[in-house]
Amino acid sequence: MQEISALETLRAFVAERNWEQFHTPENLAKSISIEAAELLECFQWGGENLRSAQEELADVLTYCILLADRLGVDPQAIVLEKLKKTGEKYPIEKARGRSEKYDQL
Amino acid sequence: MQEISALETLRAFVAERNWEQFHTPENLAKSISIEAAELLECFQWGGENLRSAQEELADVLTYCILLADRLGVDPQAIVLEKLKKTGEKYPIEKARGRSEKYDQL
Amino acid sequence: MQEISALETLRAFVAERNWEQFHTPENLAKSISIEAAELLECFQWGGENLRSAQEELADVLTYCILLADRLGVDPQAIVLEKLKKTGEKYPIEKARGRSEKYDQL
Amino acid sequence: MQEISALETLRAFVAERNWEQFHTPENLAKSISIEAAELLECFQWGGENLRSAQEELADVLTYCILLADRLGVDPQAIVLEKLKKTGEKYPIEKARGRSEKYDQL
Repeated sequence: MQEISALETLRAFVAERNWEQFHTPENLAKSISIEAAELLECFQWGGENLRSAQEELADVLTYCILLADRLGVDPQAIVLEKLKKTGEKYPIEKARGRSEKYDQL
Repeated sequence: MQEISALETLRAFVAERNWEQFHTPENLAKSISIEAAELLECFQWGGENLRSAQEELADVLTYCILLADRLGVDPQAIVLEKLKKTGEKYPIEKARGRSEKYDQL
Repeated sequence: MQEISALETLRAFVAERNWEQFHTPENLAKSISIEAAELLECFQWGGENLRSAQEELADVLTYCILLADRLGVDPQAIVLEKLKKTGEKYPIEKARGRSEKYDQL
Repeated sequence: MQEISALETLRAFVAERNWEQFHTPENLAKSISIEAAELLECFQWGGENLRSAQEELADVLTYCILLADRLGVDPQAIVLEKLKKTGEKYPIEKARGRSEKYDQL
């Protein structure tokens, strides 16, 4: 894993096309939702198309990395930080083997 | 950036709670859409709440990393692979400074 | 407005194609999210394409009517029923001219 | 079904709260995506919560009716209009019993 190189490649790709102007946090958030739905479409009618899912996941991740960059945060760091909070809401002994929301455990 | 450590922390978190059973590709795809919408909610009425956005982005990323793991692919690798295709659809000279879709450039 | 005729036209359309088998509540819910994102795409980069928006809105509505039918409820009735609850969470004197969530008013 | 009365009730509800200012087509489109994801959440881990689904569907429908009103179109009319196009893309003899997209039939 070399996040930095992916980020730098993405930054260069965007800069060459002069696309920074479109990449407000709000527009990137919309784009993440849009690509997430294209990913969901791979499972729309109960089957699954994992080859397409991989490509759509790449699109979601791309906009996530760009939004993290725009917010000035590191993707891995915010994932690990959030995981601590999630761990408090879902302690192992209560959450084990259950898919309910924390307020219904 | 240490993706591997985030991935391993996530894997342990999931395993301790015996949650692998819920993490089918389809359920993870649904979860990515659900969290993406919570991110979008930070911008629902035209304002922006960037502090909340960071937390919701973390949730989207978490499920993306778990889905990539489930599909057996590396998040960075699929982002870079997809970027090549995007570059072909959006050559610099045509796409520069424009937000139209490739078929309308 | 003749909801009944739209519903009956939709039911016939689905029956002729033998598509009821795909229209589980879950698959319809996924389809609503997918079409909602195509609607959002009309506003992705800050502009707006209202002609496309109308078509995508039609797709969202189509799946909503089918899901209501599947759940055995009337679309108008559940809208009006929910509005009562929303009115309690957002009393006029507190909510007037404000876009905050009810727990922040 | 009395769409007109639901629409008029919604219009009054919005006007009393002076919320028209927030209801741009884009904000309504975002709201539809956000509520659609809350609907999807009723099916997140493979189970289903149909009682919640009904309430979330009501929210999606509410914003759909408001957006149609904002676009100056009738919900039923655009559904029926779109259905004609869909019928051309999915002729009965080709689409019967199949869930593939029209370009893969």
